[in-house]
Amino acid sequence: QSLKIGLIPADGIGREVIPAARDAILALGSSIPKPEFIELLAGYEYFTRYRTALPDETVETLQNECDCALFGSVSSPSRKVTGYSSPIVALRKKLDLYANIRPVVSVAAEKGQKPTVDLVVVRENTECLYVKQETLTNTENGKEARATRLITERASRRIGQMAFEAALARQRKHLTVIHKSNVLSITDGLFRETVRSVPRLPESSGRFDGVEIAEQLVDSAVYRLFREPEIFDVMVAPNLYGDIISDAAAALVGSLGLVPSINAGDNFVMGEPVHGSAPDIAGKSIANPLASIRSAALMLRHLGYSDGADRIDNAVDEVIRRGDVLTPDLGGKSRTEDVTAEVLKRI
Amino acid sequence: QSLKIGLIPADGIGREVIPAARDAILALGSSIPKPEFIELLAGYEYFTRYRTALPDETVETLQNECDCALFGSVSSPSRKVTGYSSPIVALRKKLDLYANIRPVVSVAAEKGQKPTVDLVVVRENTECLYVKQETLTNTENGKEARATRLITERASRRIGQMAFEAALARQRKHLTVIHKSNVLSITDGLFRETVRSVPRLPESSGRFDGVEIAEQLVDSAVYRLFREPEIFDVMVAPNLYGDIISDAAAALVGSLGLVPSINAGDNFVMGEPVHGSAPDIAGKSIANPLASIRSAALMLRHLGYSDGADRIDNAVDEVIRRGDVLTPDLGGKSRTEDVTAEVLKRI
Ligand SMILES: CC(C)[C@H](C(=O)O)[C@@H](O)C(=O)O
Ligand SMILES: CC(C)[C@H](C(=O)O)[C@@H](O)C(=O)O
Repeated sequence: QSLKIGLIPADGIGREVIPAARDAILALGSSIPKPEFIELLAGYEYFTRYRTALPDETVETLQNECDCALFGSVSSPSRKVTGYSSPIVALRKKLDLYANIRPVVSVAAEKGQKPTVDLVVVRENTECLYVKQETLTNTENGKEARATRLITERASRRIGQMAFEAALARQRKHLTVIHKSNVLSITDGLFRETVRSVPRLPESSGRFDGVEIAEQLVDSAVYRLFREPEIFDVMVAPNLYGDIISDAAAALVGSLGLVPSINAGDNFVMGEPVHGSAPDIAGKSIANPLASIRSAALMLRHLGYSDGADRIDNAVDEVIRRGDVLTPDLGGKSRTEDVTAEVLKRI
Repeated sequence: QSLKIGLIPADGIGREVIPAARDAILALGSSIPKPEFIELLAGYEYFTRYRTALPDETVETLQNECDCALFGSVSSPSRKVTGYSSPIVALRKKLDLYANIRPVVSVAAEKGQKPTVDLVVVRENTECLYVKQETLTNTENGKEARATRLITERASRRIGQMAFEAALARQRKHLTVIHKSNVLSITDGLFRETVRSVPRLPESSGRFDGVEIAEQLVDSAVYRLFREPEIFDVMVAPNLYGDIISDAAAALVGSLGLVPSINAGDNFVMGEPVHGSAPDIAGKSIANPLASIRSAALMLRHLGYSDGADRIDNAVDEVIRRGDVLTPDLGGKSRTEDVTAEVLKRI
């Protein structure tokens, strides 16, 4: 039996950090099923050559041959480019990876100490403004553009369930619903009410009784993230707010280069570092591989291989704690491959 | 000749801080036209009694009798309440106060020193998801809610002009356009292109040549605000992003209780502290009056009374710098009225 893992480095530093994640998985040896890697294409650079950012073959291979995948990062065109559409947004939808789970944890200065930031963003991954239903009309007063923001009961319920599960699995068992229902009373009202009703669903039957639920308006959530991050445990949010608050949370732990994520559905999981393609540093071998390596661990954990995941995470924590081999985003002077090597020898 | 100022304390701590702003204006004496204050009603509490959060009389008095106004803060219902709609969102639209200008400045430890955070958020104030066009439908898969996000060329151009003016008036003359056009290519694409085209409009005719323009995706803008706030000077954003980034910026300067704003249109200006109604501390006389007092200064500056505005701002800066009479949000032990008194005696 083997574990088939699609690798989609895509653009920029994605190509430098995905190999690091692959090597970390390989380093686990026989503690997981033998990994088999399948390299797949996607991205903005691919688009500039072939007029599509996500070839059908990539999607089909993921659907038919892979058990899971690792995605790097995509570049955004700096001007409007006709026909281009973000491949990561499309992949999340096509594979119905409805939850984007982003744990943001600061590493304790000493082993065994409590981290000061320790939260998980559970971001809805298929709707909100990401449905990309936009129109442009010409009027006598100039152009008018409209986008639809879709919030459904179905998607809010399943992300709510995922979030309650995540909260239940943690020590604090605390869940904060992020919304802006003081302005968007219908869409965010539906999100809020649906998430809140999860514990009362027949299939929940008392399961979530121990989970405490709170809420925050998105603007004030960002404010409080910076002022008192310790109030948050699990945060659940519609797609766009989740995008923003996970970057806000990442700023608290020193670097986006540390924050992993998985895109999870009922039948597939794809690891993805939260950082972007970072064109300014791409090709210089100074990209931080840790977010990508941690994404591999998160993916393995989601698949049930928690021993392997622990081994990777512990190795990463130790490298950060030692602090002598780090990339420039963390104040270090080391190169991507040196940091990766430090992790590998501790796995 | 007099200056007619509408006062709309609305809910919660709005009622405690608006009187402080009024007293600061009164303390200016004859350096501005004699102020006349007109108390006006609005808010969620008003709604609970009269089923409207914004009586027509308030809007009409502002339109027909006032030169400007000061708004406090509104509470949000904690559950969906039929018929309730935010009075501040409605006021911004009814008075066509299309720009929400929010300077976020840290006070230098020493007089004359450079503040570490010194930026202005210029937020579009009339459209985006705030048009409140929402629908709810029942389908066989459950409820589906949709909201329209409207971005027009007209509104993007006038907010762009306001932002370029703001940048031009500052030392660095740097403007960052905030958007998410990697996902919302049509709506945010229109916002971005329209703002960028402002310097090329016939009526600009070289006026903005000295302004440098940059851009940031909203998620990464929030991240960078926390990591390197010094890269920002003026930030211009569609309504919702502006709401979020101004709270993020406020977190950097110690307290939302310090951040003022004005809602400005071509014919009217309304000062408003960025903080909310803070139900948890309302009625305790510990609300920070400084955001409200600074909003009065900002309003006066917008009306051309910069000497008066300077006197208020300098008094506030000195009170913060001294640090012995501050409210609890800034680590102090003083009450609202004591802080106000400290400011008044320095005006
Ligand atoms: C690249 C972009 C489309 C994406 C998003 O907005 O989801 C990114 O910011 C992320 O957080 O994964
Ligand atoms: C109270 C609310 C409607 C308002 C907004 O979202 O604009 C507030 O957050 C603000 O920033 O002024």
